[in-house]
Formats: sequence, C-alpha cells, structure tokens
Amino acid sequence: MFEQLRRKRHQVGLPPGTLETPGLTLPDAEVRIQALAYGPTDARHYDIADMRDCGPLLGQSQVLWIDVDGVHSAGALRQAGDLFGIHPLILEDISHTTQRPKLEDMEKYLFITCKMLRYDEENRRVLEEQGSFVLGPNYLVSFQEADGGDVFGEIRERIMTGKGRARRMDADYLLYCLMDAVVDNYFLVLEKVGDHIEDMEEAVLSTPSASMLENLHALRREALFLRKYIWPLREVVARLQTNGGTLVREATMPYFRDLYDHSIQVIDTIETFRDVLAGLSDLYLSGLSFKTNEIMKVLTMLSTLFIPLTFLAGLYGMNFKHMPELEWEWGYYGVLAVMAATSVGMLIFFRGKKWL
Amino acid sequence: MFEQLRRKRHQVGLPPGTLETPGLTLPDAEVRIQALAYGPTDARHYDIADMRDCGPLLGQSQVLWIDVDGVHSAGALRQAGDLFGIHPLILEDISHTTQRPKLEDMEKYLFITCKMLRYDEENRRVLEEQGSFVLGPNYLVSFQEADGGDVFGEIRERIMTGKGRARRMDADYLLYCLMDAVVDNYFLVLEKVGDHIEDMEEAVLSTPSASMLENLHALRREALFLRKYIWPLREVVARLQTNGGTLVREATMPYFRDLYDHSIQVIDTIETFRDVLAGLSDLYLSGLSFKTNEIMKVLTMLSTLFIPLTFLAGLYGMNFKHMPELEWEWGYYGVLAVMAATSVGMLIFFRGKKWL
Amino acid sequence: MFEQLRRKRHQVGLPPGTLETPGLTLPDAEVRIQALAYGPTDARHYDIADMRDCGPLLGQSQVLWIDVDGVHSAGALRQAGDLFGIHPLILEDISHTTQRPKLEDMEKYLFITCKMLRYDEENRRVLEEQGSFVLGPNYLVSFQEADGGDVFGEIRERIMTGKGRARRMDADYLLYCLMDAVVDNYFLVLEKVGDHIEDMEEAVLSTPSASMLENLHALRREALFLRKYIWPLREVVARLQTNGGTLVREATMPYFRDLYDHSIQVIDTIETFRDVLAGLSDLYLSGLSFKTNEIMKVLTMLSTLFIPLTFLAGLYGMNFKHMPELEWEWGYYGVLAVMAATSVGMLIFFRGKKWL
Amino acid sequence: MFEQLRRKRHQVGLPPGTLETPGLTLPDAEVRIQALAYGPTDARHYDIADMRDCGPLLGQSQVLWIDVDGVHSAGALRQAGDLFGIHPLILEDISHTTQRPKLEDMEKYLFITCKMLRYDEENRRVLEEQGSFVLGPNYLVSFQEADGGDVFGEIRERIMTGKGRARRMDADYLLYCLMDAVVDNYFLVLEKVGDHIEDMEEAVLSTPSASMLENLHALRREALFLRKYIWPLREVVARLQTNGGTLVREATMPYFRDLYDHSIQVIDTIETFRDVLAGLSDLYLSGLSFKTNEIMKVLTMLSTLFIPLTFLAGLYGMNFKHMPELEWEWGYYGVLAVMAATSVGMLIFFRGKKWL
Amino acid sequence: MFEQLRRKRHQVGLPPGTLETPGLTLPDAEVRIQALAYGPTDARHYDIADMRDCGPLLGQSQVLWIDVDGVHSAGALRQAGDLFGIHPLILEDISHTTQRPKLEDMEKYLFITCKMLRYDEENRRVLEEQGSFVLGPNYLVSFQEADGGDVFGEIRERIMTGKGRARRMDADYLLYCLMDAVVDNYFLVLEKVGDHIEDMEEAVLSTPSASMLENLHALRREALFLRKYIWPLREVVARLQTNGGTLVREATMPYFRDLYDHSIQVIDTIETFRDVLAGLSDLYLSGLSFKTNEIMKVLTMLSTLFIPLTFLAGLYGMNFKHMPELEWEWGYYGVLAVMAATSVGMLIFFRGKKWL
Repeated sequence: MFEQLRRKRHQVGLPPGTLETPGLTLPDAEVRIQALAYGPTDARHYDIADMRDCGPLLGQSQVLWIDVDGVHSAGALRQAGDLFGIHPLILEDISHTTQRPKLEDMEKYLFITCKMLRYDEENRRVLEEQGSFVLGPNYLVSFQEADGGDVFGEIRERIMTGKGRARRMDADYLLYCLMDAVVDNYFLVLEKVGDHIEDMEEAVLSTPSASMLENLHALRREALFLRKYIWPLREVVARLQTNGGTLVREATMPYFRDLYDHSIQVIDTIETFRDVLAGLSDLYLSGLSFKTNEIMKVLTMLSTLFIPLTFLAGLYGMNFKHMPELEWEWGYYGVLAVMAATSVGMLIFFRGKKWL
Repeated sequence: MFEQLRRKRHQVGLPPGTLETPGLTLPDAEVRIQALAYGPTDARHYDIADMRDCGPLLGQSQVLWIDVDGVHSAGALRQAGDLFGIHPLILEDISHTTQRPKLEDMEKYLFITCKMLRYDEENRRVLEEQGSFVLGPNYLVSFQEADGGDVFGEIRERIMTGKGRARRMDADYLLYCLMDAVVDNYFLVLEKVGDHIEDMEEAVLSTPSASMLENLHALRREALFLRKYIWPLREVVARLQTNGGTLVREATMPYFRDLYDHSIQVIDTIETFRDVLAGLSDLYLSGLSFKTNEIMKVLTMLSTLFIPLTFLAGLYGMNFKHMPELEWEWGYYGVLAVMAATSVGMLIFFRGKKWL
Repeated sequence: MFEQLRRKRHQVGLPPGTLETPGLTLPDAEVRIQALAYGPTDARHYDIADMRDCGPLLGQSQVLWIDVDGVHSAGALRQAGDLFGIHPLILEDISHTTQRPKLEDMEKYLFITCKMLRYDEENRRVLEEQGSFVLGPNYLVSFQEADGGDVFGEIRERIMTGKGRARRMDADYLLYCLMDAVVDNYFLVLEKVGDHIEDMEEAVLSTPSASMLENLHALRREALFLRKYIWPLREVVARLQTNGGTLVREATMPYFRDLYDHSIQVIDTIETFRDVLAGLSDLYLSGLSFKTNEIMKVLTMLSTLFIPLTFLAGLYGMNFKHMPELEWEWGYYGVLAVMAATSVGMLIFFRGKKWL
Repeated sequence: MFEQLRRKRHQVGLPPGTLETPGLTLPDAEVRIQALAYGPTDARHYDIADMRDCGPLLGQSQVLWIDVDGVHSAGALRQAGDLFGIHPLILEDISHTTQRPKLEDMEKYLFITCKMLRYDEENRRVLEEQGSFVLGPNYLVSFQEADGGDVFGEIRERIMTGKGRARRMDADYLLYCLMDAVVDNYFLVLEKVGDHIEDMEEAVLSTPSASMLENLHALRREALFLRKYIWPLREVVARLQTNGGTLVREATMPYFRDLYDHSIQVIDTIETFRDVLAGLSDLYLSGLSFKTNEIMKVLTMLSTLFIPLTFLAGLYGMNFKHMPELEWEWGYYGVLAVMAATSVGMLIFFRGKKWL
Repeated sequence: MFEQLRRKRHQVGLPPGTLETPGLTLPDAEVRIQALAYGPTDARHYDIADMRDCGPLLGQSQVLWIDVDGVHSAGALRQAGDLFGIHPLILEDISHTTQRPKLEDMEKYLFITCKMLRYDEENRRVLEEQGSFVLGPNYLVSFQEADGGDVFGEIRERIMTGKGRARRMDADYLLYCLMDAVVDNYFLVLEKVGDHIEDMEEAVLSTPSASMLENLHALRREALFLRKYIWPLREVVARLQTNGGTLVREATMPYFRDLYDHSIQVIDTIETFRDVLAGLSDLYLSGLSFKTNEIMKVLTMLSTLFIPLTFLAGLYGMNFKHMPELEWEWGYYGVLAVMAATSVGMLIFFRGKKWL
C-alpha cells in the first residue's frame, strides 16, 4: 500500500539532482523513444535509438514531439537534459516516480508531472504510473514509465492521419491533447471503480460477510489514494488555463478551460465515491445490527416460550413422596393445559411487543 | 447510479469538439425547434423545421429566442454553431449531457449549462437533464434534452400575452427568466424530497426494518447527487450577478442578485437535507440499539427468574436413594415456598436495576 | 418541518415582482401601521389607517419610523413602494416570508431582511417570523409578520420618553436599535434552548428511553434550522459595519461593530449547541451499550453459575438401572458438595474477569 | 454549563451603553485599584481609593498602569471612562463579563478584552473570568473580575524591582507583558487538563464505568468551551502584531509576534485535546464492544457445552416403560462416554473458531 | 504524551528573553560545536571549544557553517547571540525546545525552527527534537538538541569532499541542504510508521484483541502529533520559496520550491495515515460486531435446536400417575421420532434465515 513511501526511501540522502536511485533495482528494460515531427501539411514518425539523434530534428518542423517510454535510464534523461536545457532538479523529478502532480514554469519551458491510471481487472485495483511533460516553444517531450500501456497511441495516429485539429496547432495544443487523454482515462478507471462500488453495495444489502469488510476497507483506501493523486492536478490545470506564461497561446486557452472542467468532474466523482463508501460502511454496520437484533428476537422468543414450560415439566419430575398433584387423575392433562395457556399468553405478549 | 460516468465513457478518446457519441444509441426522436421573436409591441411564434430557417429572423426584432428540444442531433447543433458563431467545444458541451454547471464568457456570447430536475413520483427519485443557454446581444438559444417536460412553457405564454416585464426587457432578462424557472423548479423537487424524508423519519421512529435501511442509503445518495448538480450553479449565478460582461445590462443585475439568493436557498436546503439524513441514520442505529437492549432485558429477566427454579426442580428430581428432603411431609410445599421467595427476590433485584 | 419549502412552492411560477401568493390563504387580519416622527426635542406617535397618510409626515421631522405589522396585504405594500420608491423585487422579498437574511444596497435606500425568533414554551420549540427594514436618509420602514409579539415596543417607548441616545441620533441609529432588539431576543431564545439541552443531558445520563431519542433528534434539527436562519445575518451586519454606504453614518459604526460582536456570539452559541448535541447522541449510544453490557454480564453470570449445576441434577435424575452413585449413602451430599465447589469456582473466575 | 447565556439574559433589553445589570445581584465586594507609575529610573506604587485620584498621576511618568480588580461598580467604571475618554459601549463591554475576546481600535486608545483561566483542582474544571485592557499613549488600564487570583503580581514586582526590560519600554510593552502572562497561564491550565485527559485515558483502557462516560462528556464540553474562549484571541493578537496602529511601537512588534506564536500553540493544543478526546470516546465504545464480545463468547461456550449434555441427561430421565437403554448394564457409562465425546468435540469446534 | 506541555510549564512566568529554564534539570552534556568554512575551492573543518573562537572565522571564507549540538547551555547561546547579533527572543526560542515550526525574518538574518524526527524501533514510536537555523549573508548557524543522531553528517562530508553543488553555492543553499535532510528524514520515519500501520491492519483483520485497541489509539495520537509538528513547516517553506527576502538568492529558489513539494508530500502522507487509521478503527468495530453476530448465531442455533427437545424430555420425565404415553410400547421411539423431526424442521428454518 505505501509503495510510494518505500520507493521514496531510496532517494533519501542523495545530493539534489541525482538521477540514479541506487537501492532500487529497476528491470533493465529498453527505453523506447519515438519522435513525431509535424506541421499543418506533413507529419513524420521516427523510432529513435539514442536521444542525441533528436537534436537535428529540433526546429525542423512546426512541432516536435518526443515520447520517451521508461524513465529509469539516467543516460537518456541526461542527454534529454542537455539537448533541451532541462534543469537537473526537473530531471530528478522525472526519474523519481513518486512526485506529486505539479507544474513548474521554468520560463524557457514548462514542466508538468501527473499520475496516469490503469485498472487491473483481475485484482480489481487501480495501478498508477507517472507521466511527465516538458513543453518548449516548438517541442514537447513526454516521459512515461516503461510498463504502462500506450495511452497516447490514438493521438499519434490522429496526428499521422491529420484527423482533428492537432496538425494545425502548436505544441501547447499537443500538450492539451496528451493531458486530455490522461484525464479521459481517469473516467474509464473511475467507471470500473464505480462498478466495483455498486457490486459492493448490492452485496452489503444482501449478505454481509467478513471478507466484504476487508474489501470495503481496501476500496476506501483506494479512493483515498486516487484523491491524493488527482487533487493536485486540478491546481496544475487551473494554473495552465489562467496563467500559462508565454508558452500557452491564447487560442489554446479554451481547451485548457475545458480540461479544467473535466478535472473538476473527476474530483467531484472521487469525492462522491468517498461519501458513498462512507455511507456503505455505515450501512454495513447498521445492517449487521439489524441482523443481530433479528437473531436476538428469535432466541429470546424461543427461550421465553420454553423456559416456563421446561420449569413446569421439571417441577412435576421431582421425586417428593407427597405431591398430591401427581396422584390426580387429570393432573397430567391439567399441566398440559397450563403449558398451552402459558404459550398462548407469551405469543400474545410478543405480538404486543411487535416481535411477530 | 453512476450513469453519468457510463455516458461519459463513450466520449473518451474522441478528438475535442466531436458532437457524435458513437457508442451511445440515442432514440431518433425529432428535434423540436421553436423560435420566439418579440419586442415591446409585438411577439411572433414560429415552429422551425430546419435550424437554418432561423437566420432571417435574427436581428429582425428586439429579442430572438430559439428553444431547442433535443441535443442528440449533430446536424442541428452544427447549424446553430454556424449561425451564431458558437465554438466547437461549446457545441460539444451542449451535446454531451454530462457537464458540470458552468459559465463560459466567450466575449461575443455567454454560454451557461446547468441541470434541470424532475421528480419521478412513482419511484420517488429525482431525474435530471441538462439545459444549456447561449446568450448573444439580441438573441438567446436554449437547449434541453428531448425527454423532459416543458419547463419554459409558462414563460413563452407570458411573453406571447405580454404579461409581466419580459417584453420590455432585453435578451439578458429572458436568460434570467429561464434560469429562474429552472431554480424555482428545484424548490418543487426539493419539497417532494423533503416529504420523502419526513416519511422516512416517521417510519424510523415507529418500525425500523431492513428495507428502510436501503431507502435511507438511497436518499443519502440522492442528496449527494443533488448537491453535486446544484452547488456549481451558485458560482455561475454569482459570476453573472457581479461580472456579467457587456451582455448582462445594469438593469438586469438586481434580478440576477435575486436569483443568486434563491440558488443559495436551494443549497442551504440540500445541506439541511444532508444533515437531517445523517441524523436519521444515527437515529436508526440508536433506535435499533435501544430495541436490542429492551429485548436483552426481557430475555435476561425471564432466564434469571426461571434458571434457579429449574435448577431446584432438577435437584429434587434426582434419583438418589438417600435424599431425606424427599421423605419430608411438607418437603414439596417447602420447595414451592423457596421458589416463590427466589422469584420475589429476583423481582426486587430487577426493580433495583431499573429493569422494570 | 419543511414549512418554508411548502410556503415557497406557492411562489413558484409567478412572474418576478408578484406580491400576491395565490395558493396561500392568509387570514385576513388587519394590517397595523404605526408611525413615529421624532427629533432631538420632540416625538409624535400616529396610528395610521392607510399607508398613503404617511406621505405628509415624510421629511417633517428628523426621523420618521413606520412600523408595519402584517405583510400579507399587497395593497399596503404597493403603496409603501410608491411612497418610498421601493423596487418591486424588494417588495416581493418583504411579502414572501421565506427569505434568507440579506442586505441589499439600493443606493437610495438599504434593504435588510432577517428572522425574528420566539420560543413556544409549551411545545419547547422555536418559532420564526420574518422582519424587514427599509432604511432611507431620514426614514425607516419596518415590516413584521402579523402574528408575532411586539419586540419593538420597548424601543418605541424609549423614544417617546426620550430615554437613551435614540432621539439625538439619525435613522441609521434607529435601524441599529431595532436589529439590536432582534439579536438580543436571540439570546433569550437560545437560553431556553440551552435549558432544554441541559434537561436532555440529565435525562440521557439517568434514564435513556425511546422518546428521548426522538427529542434529541428534534433538538438537533432545531439547532440546524437556527443555524440556517442566523448564520447569514452575520454577513449582513458585517457589511453594515464595514461598508454601510452613505446611509450609515460614521458615528453609528461603533454600534454596528458591537452588534456584529453579538451576532458572532449568537453563532458561536449555536455551534456549541450543535457540538454538545452531537456529543449527547454519542453519550446516549455509549450509555446504552454500557447498559446492554451490564445486562449481558448478569445474564451470563447467572447462566454460567446454574448451567453446570442443572446438568449435574439432570445427570442423577436419569433412570438407568445401574448407576452406582445413586446407591451410595452419601451420594446426595457428595453431589451437593460438588455443586457448591463448582459455584465457588465460578465466582472466583468471575472475579478474575472483573465481572464482580 | 451555559452560565454565560444566563448572565447575558439580564443585559437584554437595556439601552446600549448601560453599565448596571439590574437582574444580576453581584456580591458587593470592594473594587481594588492599584496604580503603578514608572519610567526607566523609578517606579512608584499607589493604592487608589477613588478612581478620580488617578487623574493627577496621568502624564507624570513614562508609563501609568492602573489595575482595577472588580468590574461590577458602575461608578468606578464611569469615572475611568471620564478620565481616559472611553466610549460608553467600551465601558459596557468591560462591565458585562460575557464578551468574546476582541480588539477595538478607537484611534486614541486600543481596547482589548480576553478570557483569563484558572483551574479548580478540586472539581477538576476550568474557571474563566474576563480581563480587559485599555491602552493609551502613556497609560494602560487593566480590568479583572474581582474573584480571580493575582495573575499580574509577578509583573508588578518585576517592574518595581526593575528586573527585565519593562522599565525601559513603553505602555505597549506593558500590554504585551500582561497578555503574555494571560497566555502563559493558559499553558498551566492546559497542562492540568492534559493530566485529566491522561487519567481518563488510563481509566478507559482498564475499567470502563458509567461515571467515566459522564466525565468524558464533561471533558469534551470543557474543551469545546476552551476553544470558544481562546480561538478569537488568536485573531486579536494577529491584528496587534501586523497592524497595531500608532499605539504599538515597531520595537514591541517582535514581542507580539512571539505572543502570536504562543497563542497558536495554545490553540493547537486545544485542537489536539479535542481530537484525543474524540478518540477516547471511540476507544470507550470499542472497548465496551470488545468486552461484550468476550462475555458473549464465555456465555456461548458454556451454553453450547452443556446444552446437549443436559438434553441427554433429560432424555434418560424420561419415565417410559419401554426404554431398552435403561436396562443395559453399561448404559450409564455409555451415556457418560457420549457426553465426554460431545464435550471434546465442542472444545475442538471452539478452537477452530478461535474462541479459546 | 503531553511532555511538551510539561516542559512548557517551566518557562511560564519568566521574563521574555530568559534562556535558563530553572525547573528543568537538563543533563549537563557537553555542547559540541563544529565549524565548517568553505568556498568553491577549499573547505576547512574546526572543532570549536568556545563559541567566541568562531569570531575570527566569520567573513574569512564564502560560507561559514557553525553547527551547535546541545541548546541547554545559556552561556554558549549568549555568546552566539553576541557574535551574530541575534535578538534575545530568538535565543529564547532556540533554547526552549517546545516551539512550533516558524520562520522569523529579522532583516539581517533569517531564523527558522523546525522539528527533527527519529524512530525508536524498539518501542515503535516517533521521537522529536528541535532544530533551529540562523541564516546570515555569509554564515549559517544550526542548533540541535544534544541527544539526537547526526542528521547532517552526510552533508558535512559532501562539502568536505566537494561532491555535489554545495561548495559552489552560498549559505542559503546550505540552509536548503540542511532542511532537505530534515524533510528527507521525515520520509524514513513515515515509512516506519506506515509499516506499523500495515501490521496493525493485518492484525485487525485476523485477530482483534484488547491490546490492539490500545495500539490503534496510540498510533492515532502519534499521527496527530506528527501533523502538529509538520503542518506549520509547510508554511515556513512556502514563505522561503516565494519571499525569502534578500538572504535567499534567486538561484536557490528552485531548490526551495522542490523542498516545498516534498513538505507537501509529507503532509499528504500524514493525512493519508490519519484517514487510514480512522478507517482501521471503524474496521475494528465492524469486525467485532461481525464476530459478535457470528457468535450470537451459533448460540441461538444451538439453543433453538435443543430447547424444544429438552422440554420434551422434561415432559416425559414427569412423575404423574396417569400418563398414558408412558405405557405405550413404542412411546419412547415415538418421542425420539418427534425430536428428530423438530431438529430437521429447525435446520430447515435456519437455512431459510441464511444462518447456515
């Protein structure tokens, strides 16, 4: 649960600006770099082996988008840093995947980092990875952790085929497209979480069990973490839409405003989840109390019915020499009658108490 | 419950500004368009078949109100967009009915979207649909989802018959009238919800049942959703009343201030509902605890009364050869006396414990 | 409980500025109008039959105070509107008694509306009515619902007899006096509510009952409504004390600052009530749990004491032919000894569990 | 508990600026007035019988501190008002001891009122009284309720003996010293309350009882009231440290900043108390539930062990003519064996349920 | 638990600016003073015996860092005060280790105080001590309580060996490095607390016990105190990053921004801890309720099964002379059959209730 805290530990004690995290043994997966150079009229796609190969592409076309999959290679990051003049602290933020979503305006470029979510259908839990964007005047560099799916594939295709507005717009619009894809993805994940909550809801109302309690707790924690990941994004987009510096053009502003609305909708939904889940916990407890109450009623009714009868039976099971009732001819039937009367009386009493 | 989330899903992955939502099979109901052109002296009503027919009407009279029922037709929306110069993102907001209430000042026109509520008496639940308004200098275009009732009928009639102030005022006053109708409608819906809550309240105090728990949970969720729909409207009206740009005239300001007061009253009421419902949940639990406690008392009293008696009876039911008491002449009556004394002692003990 | 909502309903759908509320059959009580014209040296009191008779009084003396009891007469309101130039929306606010406390600065006059409270000793509940004030440069018009008591009587007398500062001050000081009387009255009502809470507190600690639960719920709701009525007043007074426009003179400012302090004290008290009441609900539940726990202990102790004894008695009540113990001479006494030993062991066990 | 509210009642309905509170019969204790006139080189102490005797002292030395014990004498207050030109509303605030802590900047002088706390060791509760300060350019008048201890004695002595900085500083530094004494005193009181909470904590964990519940409730209410008394003080000191007008000199600012830090620490501590107490209530309830659960286990285990055995014993206590088992030679021992086996089975079942 | 409050007590009543705390008997550990004078090209380390020896070092190199371990020596503090011109109130803040984290801008120097945390693995609790920093134009004085570990050792070594950026930067960067070390340390402590919480979580879900309740309460209190210690630090760093006065250079700003992000992450984590712990308490209670419910079921089922059977057995154990059933040849087997039928009926009933 607190993996972020554990990952963070390995970064403690290093001088600021360090990119390698010694304690952390990352799988040595290849870093995949794709470049997309495009303008209103054309778009070219490159698979880049070495970050330094991007240098000549820069400035050749209206927009250059470099998409880096995998942030564990200090070498690639440092080359990108040299190429685009990125501050060492920013490079550190990119490589350490425990950042809080934030926007850093470095004047020559904007740096944005946020969380990208995926839903693990099998274990019904949300997975997160970190996405970072460096927006310059005519380029955009995006960084993703290696193991995520390709959220940006659709946008790449849209640009290649010239569908939509993207080809005619600048790099800031591309930033919007990517962030929009990230936020849209939140909705998909939230829908799955919502389905999970609805399943829980039905289960709580029908058959409360101990494992459900655990699930409910896990869901509440998940909502807690979702909130922690997404809440700061709102602030980031708010700053983009109102004060994007010189790098976000006037024409792109309405799009970021739209994005802002979406991010608020995401937050609203998470808050609603939290409220609904809190209500579910109450519901579980109330339902349990209700069932205990019902069980108590059954137990009490049966005990109350039979305890006096059993006592009577015990009474006439005593072995005293002198017990006149035992001799009576109709004694047995008399006792049976008394027992029946007691039972009927009890039942009337129960009805008065509204237990029946 | 999370239908909004589900509807939202179909819009994910589309390029910004897309009006068609492919996954969503909307019923192909006709879009109904009504135009109302009016000024201080006259008012004409048109049923419009094709949005492009509205073009010649524009500018002919002091105010042109075009009311569109049904937002699922991408064609009609696009024609309206062309006619009034509406930004593609705004058109998208109109057609995707999962928006958060908001105000967008586009300088040449104002765009407002909000939720319109109806109450389904049969299932006792609140239904919502989306209403959008585009206010220009001398026109107002209103969009409603097709399946709602006609909230604006009364206003249309008032204008046609020249009742009230509307004919003498500009398009911004018409906007006020429509939004006022929407907010007034909230009060009607809230009254129904309030009735429902009062019914629940009575039921909780008289006979708690398991189904009530479910209803209570549903009501709390409804209050949650109402809050989510209406809270942002306050902000919208606040911006209108303080800073309506050039499109809202000074003379209309007091009316929007009034509307603002009403929207705050609506929110106050919803908050009160939430507090009352939270109190009801507590009440339910406390009431249940009280009943369990009462049942425990009855069970314990009866058990406590009879357990010693039954033991005594069992004692003298033993078959030992040498039990002198059994031979005593008054043994049986002695035991009965001891039993009676024990019972009386118990009853005194209960009175001391305040159980009787 | 939600009468305000019900009253509100009848106003829905009417054009803005409507004074009559058709659905609401108000008792046709007479409207009582009193005028008080005064200055530093003299004060005259008039009983006014027709609002139009106030016209000649206006401007004759330093301050003219017109006190209207009853706001259900559209005629009187409209005449007052004509006389003092009051905006139709303001008149509507005066006549519809479901307003949220607010201050409206109309430049030529200030409009203030707030809630006046009374305590119904018999049913132990708070009653509210609406009070409205229109402050002009040299006049003040106050409106109360007809059925309230005379909160302002003391002030009228003070002016007539020349006691206190009022005769030497302007109309804004009179406004302060009236609002001060309203807020002072809140303290009286809150004291009664406080007494009620203290009674509840004692009752919860001594004898929890089901009806108490209901009372507690009712009190919490009352506190909720008090808060809703009084909270916005703070804002109204805050605006008066900082920015009263030209109508509130510098010399009166300290008095409104004092009033502001009082209104904050009222709110503090209500918040404290809410916290104390929430604590009381917890106390009730905890007390109940404690009692259930005590009952469980008694039941368990008694059952545990007697169950083994009863078993032993049953054992030797069996009718087997060959049960050697039954033949033993001291068998009976042996069993009694075993029973006594078991009981003593149980009691020691209970002491170890701290149940005794 | 709501004494403040009761005291307040007697002030309702009086004209603003009234000093006598008719309904309140105050003990006619003497008002004690002490004057301290001092400068860098000398300090003189006077016991003043009549407030008018202070007149000649004013302006004679660098600072004149007049300390008034007892605010129930309208005469002394009015004389002080005349002497220092204090506004009637301020005098009313001094005499009515139900004020919320506040700062009033009257340009010629500053008025500050706050709560002074004492701890009643015997009843373990916090007592409050009101302290007020009027700071002029070269004088300071302090007012305390008569029955409090002497919080300011130490400062008086420090000034007389010339210890510390006070003699070299102006009246505003004296104000700081007095308020610092008040706030330091809060820490002493809070320490006592903290000890009380710790005692409660231990008690809750060892032996929950019904009286503890009451104590816990009382403590929570005390924390509530402490918060209400102290919270507004923060604001007062905040205004002093940032914008003390002309009466608070630049050189004294760091001291008020220090005081501000202390007042925030006090508030932090109270908030922590509130959180800890809320946790304690939960702890009490959880502990009780745990105990009930334990008791249930014991009861259930014993019942479950013996119920089948008792049934078996009862079975063979039946008096049927034809019961072959009764005739068997080893029948009795067989039944005993079955009983033993049942018991062992039950114990294994309990172990499986983790009840043992 | 409230040691801070107790320590605070000894400081109450002293004149402002006092360094000795009489009531507090501090161990007379030696104060250890280390000086580090460095610039881009060289770095020298001194062990200082007397604070006055630092005088000549000041101004000799680009940065002079004096690290003082132990704040209980009034003499050393006063010498430092003289040497660097530190205000007496600041010296008091350094020596009294109960400060709230704060930043004091004294123009000639910045004063910062904050909490440094350590984790006591054995008792699983967080220990805190106070760290203070005085930043001048070319020097930095740091103060730690004597008993802490050496958090700054790594930085000292980095400077000595010239690793990282520190040698090339000014004193404000050194301040950043030290504060970064403090905040990074928080993450290590939080990770341990997180592990503790996870252990609790597992324990709550498997075997709730009374001691766990105590632990949970202790953890919640720890989270409360962590929050109280760390929350104000955020504000301190916020002021540093936005408005560090002339002492924090433009070039260092990005580093403080980074520090700010980290401190927010720390706070986020603590808030998450608090939420998770609150959820754990609920989980504990719900789990307990569930277990009680399960136990009730077992008890009720067994009682319900056997109570009617035992009654039947008791019935035919009566000694009436005339009980025809007893004479029947198959009476015994008939009763056994009835008993079996009753049991089967009961089991079917339980299945209907979903208890099996």
